[in-house]
Amino acid sequence: MASDGMVAGPLGDLDPEEFRRHGHEVVDWIAGFLAAPERYPVLARVKPGDVRGALPASAPDGPEPLDRVLADFERVILPGITHWNHPGFFAYFAISGSAPGILGELLCAALNVNAMLWRTSPAATELEDVVLDWLRKLLGLPAGFRGVIYDTASISTLCALAAAREAAGLEVRERGMAGRPDIPRLRVYTSEQAHSSVEKGAIVLGLGREGVRKIPTDAEFRMDPAALARAITEDRAAGWRPIAVCATVGTTGTTSVDPVPAIADIAAREGLWLHVDAAYGGVAAILPERREVLAGCDRADSIVVNPHKWLFTPVDCSALFCRRSDVLKRAFTLVPSFLQTPEGTAVENYMDWGPQLGRRFRALKLWMVLRAFGRSGIEARLSEHMRLGRLFAEWVDGDPDWERIAPVPFSTVVFRLRPRVWASDDPRLHALNERLLEGVNASGEAFLSHVVLGGRYALRLAIGNIRTEERHVRRAWEILRAEALRLGALPVTVAGG
Amino acid sequence: MASDGMVAGPLGDLDPEEFRRHGHEVVDWIAGFLAAPERYPVLARVKPGDVRGALPASAPDGPEPLDRVLADFERVILPGITHWNHPGFFAYFAISGSAPGILGELLCAALNVNAMLWRTSPAATELEDVVLDWLRKLLGLPAGFRGVIYDTASISTLCALAAAREAAGLEVRERGMAGRPDIPRLRVYTSEQAHSSVEKGAIVLGLGREGVRKIPTDAEFRMDPAALARAITEDRAAGWRPIAVCATVGTTGTTSVDPVPAIADIAAREGLWLHVDAAYGGVAAILPERREVLAGCDRADSIVVNPHKWLFTPVDCSALFCRRSDVLKRAFTLVPSFLQTPEGTAVENYMDWGPQLGRRFRALKLWMVLRAFGRSGIEARLSEHMRLGRLFAEWVDGDPDWERIAPVPFSTVVFRLRPRVWASDDPRLHALNERLLEGVNASGEAFLSHVVLGGRYALRLAIGNIRTEERHVRRAWEILRAEALRLGALPVTVAGG
Repeated sequence: MASDGMVAGPLGDLDPEEFRRHGHEVVDWIAGFLAAPERYPVLARVKPGDVRGALPASAPDGPEPLDRVLADFERVILPGITHWNHPGFFAYFAISGSAPGILGELLCAALNVNAMLWRTSPAATELEDVVLDWLRKLLGLPAGFRGVIYDTASISTLCALAAAREAAGLEVRERGMAGRPDIPRLRVYTSEQAHSSVEKGAIVLGLGREGVRKIPTDAEFRMDPAALARAITEDRAAGWRPIAVCATVGTTGTTSVDPVPAIADIAAREGLWLHVDAAYGGVAAILPERREVLAGCDRADSIVVNPHKWLFTPVDCSALFCRRSDVLKRAFTLVPSFLQTPEGTAVENYMDWGPQLGRRFRALKLWMVLRAFGRSGIEARLSEHMRLGRLFAEWVDGDPDWERIAPVPFSTVVFRLRPRVWASDDPRLHALNERLLEGVNASGEAFLSHVVLGGRYALRLAIGNIRTEERHVRRAWEILRAEALRLGALPVTVAGG
Repeated sequence: MASDGMVAGPLGDLDPEEFRRHGHEVVDWIAGFLAAPERYPVLARVKPGDVRGALPASAPDGPEPLDRVLADFERVILPGITHWNHPGFFAYFAISGSAPGILGELLCAALNVNAMLWRTSPAATELEDVVLDWLRKLLGLPAGFRGVIYDTASISTLCALAAAREAAGLEVRERGMAGRPDIPRLRVYTSEQAHSSVEKGAIVLGLGREGVRKIPTDAEFRMDPAALARAITEDRAAGWRPIAVCATVGTTGTTSVDPVPAIADIAAREGLWLHVDAAYGGVAAILPERREVLAGCDRADSIVVNPHKWLFTPVDCSALFCRRSDVLKRAFTLVPSFLQTPEGTAVENYMDWGPQLGRRFRALKLWMVLRAFGRSGIEARLSEHMRLGRLFAEWVDGDPDWERIAPVPFSTVVFRLRPRVWASDDPRLHALNERLLEGVNASGEAFLSHVVLGGRYALRLAIGNIRTEERHVRRAWEILRAEALRLGALPVTVAGG
């Protein structure tokens, strides 16, 4: 991205023609990057301090030409990037900065809207409203659900739990919880496999880690509803006040799906707020034949689905659908004089829906993604990712030196290397798989992550980037087997075959 | 932005050449927009429901060509945009999507990094570290402060208050606050003029609105330290446990600066966490001659400064500097097995610093802004904005039909129309100024907001957009006077003069 260097003038912004020229350069660079992201190692190879050491200790005294800044982006920053947009990114949950989404972010940055009030950009508020209703329909959720976009599922779940706390009718919003002998200990229920954001949300909200009771899961890592019912009964007897249950559709560890219909029965009976964390798995319901992954969610009070996970939208974009948005707003609305507008309550002001006053125009990129791919295009891509997941699972299942650890309801496979001659409880398996993972990740061609399940260290291969094709999954399997061989864990004839 | 329409293929992303072509179109559109943002009315003229009504009720069944989407952006979305990047945007706090910042967002979206762990992009973590240290030095804060980027000042302040709650040593993180007879009521102090985010943060954290005591301000809207000291003494006697005080450098209403040195004395004596909300005003300290706006802040426990306010960085980007980052991390750290990495504690994982696991690579745009403008370039722009603020204040002061309501420590002027023949407590002044504001905002050339101060309705003219020049401020003054004339509130000879 080198070019001759005009620097910023004494006042004002860069000259728009300079923006145009550098903008074209950056777009060209991105086009090349998106055409061949494999030219970079997926997991950054720098050591701690490498990037820091290559940067000056202070901001420059005067303006620098943008071409120098962009050259440093390539020279210093890029080697330190772990490439989430690489088709060999299989760690955590694979996500996508798709082309329509990237252009959406570009327009969002240029408009630089703060969508806090309807008036501060009516289109931002109304497009958020419309595009989340599109998503609601795609997911098959009933019309009673109203949507709002937050930055992350962590915040979506925090807001859901704040609404649950508000719904408990304890005047927590006004009076807080400290030093109040009139309120009992409050408890939220979620499974042992739930995302850490549930516990973190409870910490932030002042419920504490003890305010979260983790319900055991079955052999397939799904919440045990009978154990949930027992826990609630026990807790009530011990003086706790249960306020919410958080079920998960697509847990982070294994993508297991909690039995939401049974959990919804219990929540209804016990008068608990039911929140569903479907941040990753929820979008699978866009496929008619997978609609059942959200079974029971029509009875939830809130459900979070993250377009920035498996819906090809750049981070950040998390959609919370809420059936009781009045309660959600009651938990948060606070309007100082300087934010009152002539429109009054005739419009929705999304600042009333959460902790953040500042809100980017995130609906724009989601709108562009949904239009560019369309329902059928999204279905095709999700379906293909699930096919690739099943394919990889078949390879694991077909090889006696590997072991699958969990079912594959979506596109994420949890497995480990277990050489056929090793017992499944061999204590060396943990270190073996840890070394295997590090070796594979050092290849630069694939990046996987891990999870510990019931003491067993397992690898996770999560398919979700829009650029991932069968050849990338196949290559990951080759690298895994080659690395296993290198570690001396496989009979040569098998691994080489 | 019309062009012929290729639609997304059956799988994968848009063709990179399509991205290149549309990317160039979007960059060209933005260059034109940045060259003449005045061609759009600054405050959107649509009525509630206009944008919604122009959009289909459901997502398209199949893929649509991006040129059609971009055409709809211009046709449907753009008329509903309130233009925060317009030089006539004087409402709330004026902000800037500057050219280097926009390009930073574009690269951020293309890389689509989640900066939750060091390993998930070492450059994102280390650049955040470095660039916030640049900013710390520019602000003149001592080396003991460590920085972290959040999305908004609302979250920065929430995190600071969470750290204060943690520092109180009441085991709130583990045990929560509900149903605990062993802990007293907890209280946070801030001024009557503080931003609503302090109160909202307290609500989220379970301290409640009653957990915030608002300290009266002096005639210049600054917190009264004597009143603070008295309030703390009273509260302790009544069984409250004071935990934090939040001072403001640049309040939202009038940009007043609390006497932080005196407040720091009290906080130190009382053992309270001192948080400073300098989200808007803090950056003025970059100017050596304005360094005193952060006087006493070296003794704060935390201080928030928003590069997305008055530092030319697109939303969102809020920097929290903390002198006790160990406490901040203790309030939030929670590491499930799937997020453990081989680097262990040898690296910083910024997910440990706040409620959100997902984190965009926000440091990139801030780095590009600081380099493109340099220290001297930033100083020149801030200085010019403050000169324009003083200029506007002089016009108000020099006109007997107008009244300035507050000092102008930065670049925001708070004033009202008070025809010379009207008493300052005339009850008609509220409605007059309300109508004046609506009239000015309907012009499409200037957008101001308001604040109610001690029952007085006042207008705010906030200068901060990088494209605002003297002519835009001058034009706003002309429009204000013309509108006052139209309202019949001025003697014709004066207003027409």
